[in-house]
Amino acid sequence: MANFLSIFTMRNLLVLSLALNLSLIMRVFYETEKHGPRGFSAQKADSGLEKAAHATQRTLVSLSSSGQDDGEKLINLDHGDPTMYESYWQQMGEKTTVVIPGWQSMSYFSDVKNPCWFLEPEFAKQVVRLHNLVGNAVTEGRQIVVGTGSSQLFLAALYALAPKDASEPISVISAAPFYSSYPSMTDYLKSGLYKWAGDARSFDKEGPYIELVTSPNNPDGFVRHSMVNRTGGILVHDLAYYWPQYTPISSAADHDLTLFTVSKATGHAGTRIGWALVKDPEVAKKMIKFIELSTIGVSRDSQLRAARILEVIINSSQNPAGPESGESFFKISYHLMAERWQLLREAVNKGRFFSLPDFQQGFCQFLNQVSQPQPAFAWLKCEDESVEDCESLLRGHKILTRGGRSFGVGPRYIRVSMLDRDHNFNLFLKRLASIQT
Amino acid sequence: MANFLSIFTMRNLLVLSLALNLSLIMRVFYETEKHGPRGFSAQKADSGLEKAAHATQRTLVSLSSSGQDDGEKLINLDHGDPTMYESYWQQMGEKTTVVIPGWQSMSYFSDVKNPCWFLEPEFAKQVVRLHNLVGNAVTEGRQIVVGTGSSQLFLAALYALAPKDASEPISVISAAPFYSSYPSMTDYLKSGLYKWAGDARSFDKEGPYIELVTSPNNPDGFVRHSMVNRTGGILVHDLAYYWPQYTPISSAADHDLTLFTVSKATGHAGTRIGWALVKDPEVAKKMIKFIELSTIGVSRDSQLRAARILEVIINSSQNPAGPESGESFFKISYHLMAERWQLLREAVNKGRFFSLPDFQQGFCQFLNQVSQPQPAFAWLKCEDESVEDCESLLRGHKILTRGGRSFGVGPRYIRVSMLDRDHNFNLFLKRLASIQT
Repeated sequence: MANFLSIFTMRNLLVLSLALNLSLIMRVFYETEKHGPRGFSAQKADSGLEKAAHATQRTLVSLSSSGQDDGEKLINLDHGDPTMYESYWQQMGEKTTVVIPGWQSMSYFSDVKNPCWFLEPEFAKQVVRLHNLVGNAVTEGRQIVVGTGSSQLFLAALYALAPKDASEPISVISAAPFYSSYPSMTDYLKSGLYKWAGDARSFDKEGPYIELVTSPNNPDGFVRHSMVNRTGGILVHDLAYYWPQYTPISSAADHDLTLFTVSKATGHAGTRIGWALVKDPEVAKKMIKFIELSTIGVSRDSQLRAARILEVIINSSQNPAGPESGESFFKISYHLMAERWQLLREAVNKGRFFSLPDFQQGFCQFLNQVSQPQPAFAWLKCEDESVEDCESLLRGHKILTRGGRSFGVGPRYIRVSMLDRDHNFNLFLKRLASIQT
Repeated sequence: MANFLSIFTMRNLLVLSLALNLSLIMRVFYETEKHGPRGFSAQKADSGLEKAAHATQRTLVSLSSSGQDDGEKLINLDHGDPTMYESYWQQMGEKTTVVIPGWQSMSYFSDVKNPCWFLEPEFAKQVVRLHNLVGNAVTEGRQIVVGTGSSQLFLAALYALAPKDASEPISVISAAPFYSSYPSMTDYLKSGLYKWAGDARSFDKEGPYIELVTSPNNPDGFVRHSMVNRTGGILVHDLAYYWPQYTPISSAADHDLTLFTVSKATGHAGTRIGWALVKDPEVAKKMIKFIELSTIGVSRDSQLRAARILEVIINSSQNPAGPESGESFFKISYHLMAERWQLLREAVNKGRFFSLPDFQQGFCQFLNQVSQPQPAFAWLKCEDESVEDCESLLRGHKILTRGGRSFGVGPRYIRVSMLDRDHNFNLFLKRLASIQT
């Protein structure tokens, strides 16, 4: 190169080039400063999130006065905010960064050739690649419908599956313990199309119904199948946690309507991106209509970002030593969850105060080994008979959890997030041990 | 610098630095290639968007076979897709680019100190700055609630304002011609909380009601005030088009509940970001709850992007000659709209077939001059008595518009988007002239 450039030209080019890099790097740091991971817990409740926000605000005040666990810091494990994954993504560095110029993705429309006209083709492509890689869901012959998180897709599914001209709303059921937001999400608008009808196990009403099957289940982590097997039943499978870090991938799910979300798969809850795999094109069409009427599509920026994240995960798994990849996301996450569950079981087994579910190990097709279920939530039971309300007990020790009643069972159960940052998880273990002594 | 670096080191640094820049530039180009402005029309219907997508698909096929207007190309002006603004943002270049690292904004929570816990502080800050600059809305003493477009905020407002224990759903009304999606958005879930009750002008039911006031109005562009003045009435002001390019800014809006959207303000429809300014904290709280139950918050990525876009607009207006700015967005957009309206009026005035509304000019506080209303939609009327259905007539000339019936009035009116790309707008004018000859 020295043959072609004078030292003067080279020097100017170098200065210019360094300045350009510096401005880009500065922008990344500026964004980091404003919005990056912070050293505090931000876990909140699926329902009552605003209360949780206030609780965390108090936590912040408490943290600022003391960096130690003086027992005063409130640890909020009520919600499943997946901040545990931040450190992986920090380590992956710049390859997961998205760059979106101001004039890009301005139109409402992502893909006029797709019935789901607001679906970014690149996101759809990476969803298919990811399922093919992990082997957790059949994508062939399915319409992908993207949603503002899987919450929106859950509501879209109810809208799409409920008969439009029925004399009364269709019953929506799920076996207890069920995801605590199902009842309020189903009923908050008092829809004439669908209505929450409670625990699937005790459901005995005649006529059509929609059964929600969450597998592995939120809150207890067990693999689930339909509980009611009757004519007129329509199933919605919520497979948010059917990923190798949480449960053995036994086979590719092949249901009529399946929901997934980036939040639990990769930890990017703030992007609000979920997707549905839908067999019946007419059902998909109605879901698309629902999303059109409620939000006129789904953030294109977040879809582009999610596409990039999924692509990096795929690269990391397919070719962990490659220059464009890094350590396998699912393997690292699996080991992290394994470590946390081992620590939790050790803490619980030190006394007789609490118990945890026992899971059966299984062969994971993706990891190509026997693997353990290690759910994103711990479903703790207070075994001590003097305790009426386990949630209150833990709140007394400044640990926010969600009590069994929210999930349709008794107050001796609590759901505890396993996906918080290291510091809070360790504080939780420490306090759990102190309760038992 | 040559004093400190050998030529060898300089050369290596230069190569590395150029490579880094190249990779960043390549990424931008790669994203551009995939998602950037394309030379075709993507306008669609607010309702029936999937039909519009198919129509545009046919347009693409037609375009690929001919670059000329052979009368075969379908021009879709049914929806208000604001692609006209792409060229401004292309000219603004890199300063509007957002860069989001993989580990940023992963948590569900944007700001635990804010009742609206999913509101990005930077976005809230730029919203306040923008309103202060333009002078179109009072922000003091208001809770900002961010939504997945203003559609979601419209639904959140209905949920928040409807009494929860009423014996029947509250009536939702708006004066015809009203925004065509209001009826279907209000009624698609058959909510027991609220129900569409039609034209505000003929509303005579006793009891409470919610009146939607869109100003300037979609579809006809007129400035609007409440039509019903009765006890028990609650107002929602949709000010999506209350920006200097569309209408004179006469004063700062000071209502109880006001909706805005990035789509119409800046042209970034694909980000799906809107905001509400809400006076009553209890109403705001219920709107926040609605967004929690329907989508667990709003894309953080899109909020960050919208914040950057608003910031650039503010800079461009405050200091148009500054290094970080460019030509004033609102001034350029105002002149663009003025030019389009002049061309449209010229085309219409060449015959007696069509007519357009006449608007009163007013003093614009922002532009500091008398300015013309020049709405985002043209509300055309077929004056020729032989024409029963104006929408069908234009469809016969391969122009998709939305007929008056969708807006609660007769079929001799049509709504036509004024925000399409230049090429399509010009084709529209050409065909309009040909209809009249």
